[in-house]
Amino acid sequence: MMPKKSTKSVSKTALKVLPKASFSLRTARLEDFEEIYDIFRHVLTEGKTYSYTLAEMTPDRSLAYWISAPGTHCIVADVNGKVAGVAAIRPNRTGRAGHVANASYMVHPDYRKQGIARALGEQALKIAKKQGYKAMQYNFVVSINSVAVKLWKSLGFTIVGTLPKGFQHATQGLVDVYIMHKFL
Amino acid sequence: MMPKKSTKSVSKTALKVLPKASFSLRTARLEDFEEIYDIFRHVLTEGKTYSYTLAEMTPDRSLAYWISAPGTHCIVADVNGKVAGVAAIRPNRTGRAGHVANASYMVHPDYRKQGIARALGEQALKIAKKQGYKAMQYNFVVSINSVAVKLWKSLGFTIVGTLPKGFQHATQGLVDVYIMHKFL
Repeated sequence: MMPKKSTKSVSKTALKVLPKASFSLRTARLEDFEEIYDIFRHVLTEGKTYSYTLAEMTPDRSLAYWISAPGTHCIVADVNGKVAGVAAIRPNRTGRAGHVANASYMVHPDYRKQGIARALGEQALKIAKKQGYKAMQYNFVVSINSVAVKLWKSLGFTIVGTLPKGFQHATQGLVDVYIMHKFL
Repeated sequence: MMPKKSTKSVSKTALKVLPKASFSLRTARLEDFEEIYDIFRHVLTEGKTYSYTLAEMTPDRSLAYWISAPGTHCIVADVNGKVAGVAAIRPNRTGRAGHVANASYMVHPDYRKQGIARALGEQALKIAKKQGYKAMQYNFVVSINSVAVKLWKSLGFTIVGTLPKGFQHATQGLVDVYIMHKFL
């Protein structure tokens, strides 16, 4: 899959030209894990999106989280063999709530603003639907992560819940968290 | 702690008199687990409140869930040495969301409508506050479980989210699920 064309005009985007990398989406391989874990450590250290601590997210737990836990389907955005982004699709809960999927995403800091998260999100929805899920639910979208909130809304998600002061943001203190949902 | 007096008039309650049992709340002991697990199996088989399947909730996993997982504090309502109800207080998430508590509850079918859930809920809030949590959050309150929704509202919880068709109810099909929240 090729990156989506930006809807911004050339004159606007010309101000900050990024080296656009052509990426393809593919199922993750075990060999990708080291790069995925590097991104995860970076993201957790940033402390702006995920609640997990670096200490608890050992390599073993991280491997389960992104790739190997039961029912998990992991895809990566591949740029010349390098992991530029990752998405894990999994059941949000089991049993009587097992018809709802959940997904997690990360984009490597060097490859942001290139449409990779959008492409991963679109693909995750396709995969979840193909696997028979009836909905996709994000449990923890930090409310001030406006890029993410805007992206998911543009893909048809709605905010179905707001957890007041649910996240201790690294630089902004306690901020709200959104639960976002989309029927498939 | 004694059960709360009902606010219903005598004439109304007289129609269905239950054998009222005096109960006390105490920290759970490992020896309580067998009785807790019996209640859990009954509740999961009912399929009206929890999403977990009986198959996945093995004794080992159930023991962790109710008593032994890190950060879990389990209390029981004790009626003459028998477990009439149980509550587990735990962190809802870790790290940057670790300031929010979560709790799960069950009341033995023979001891319902006696104020046990309310007493457990009140005690859970006290314990969570004492442990330093800033809020209590319930992630999965089945919307048509009106007894629970009414009880938690009466204890100061508000509905902060609605997961549409999030639960496959044993007899009512797909129903909404509430996320309920209370600052401590």
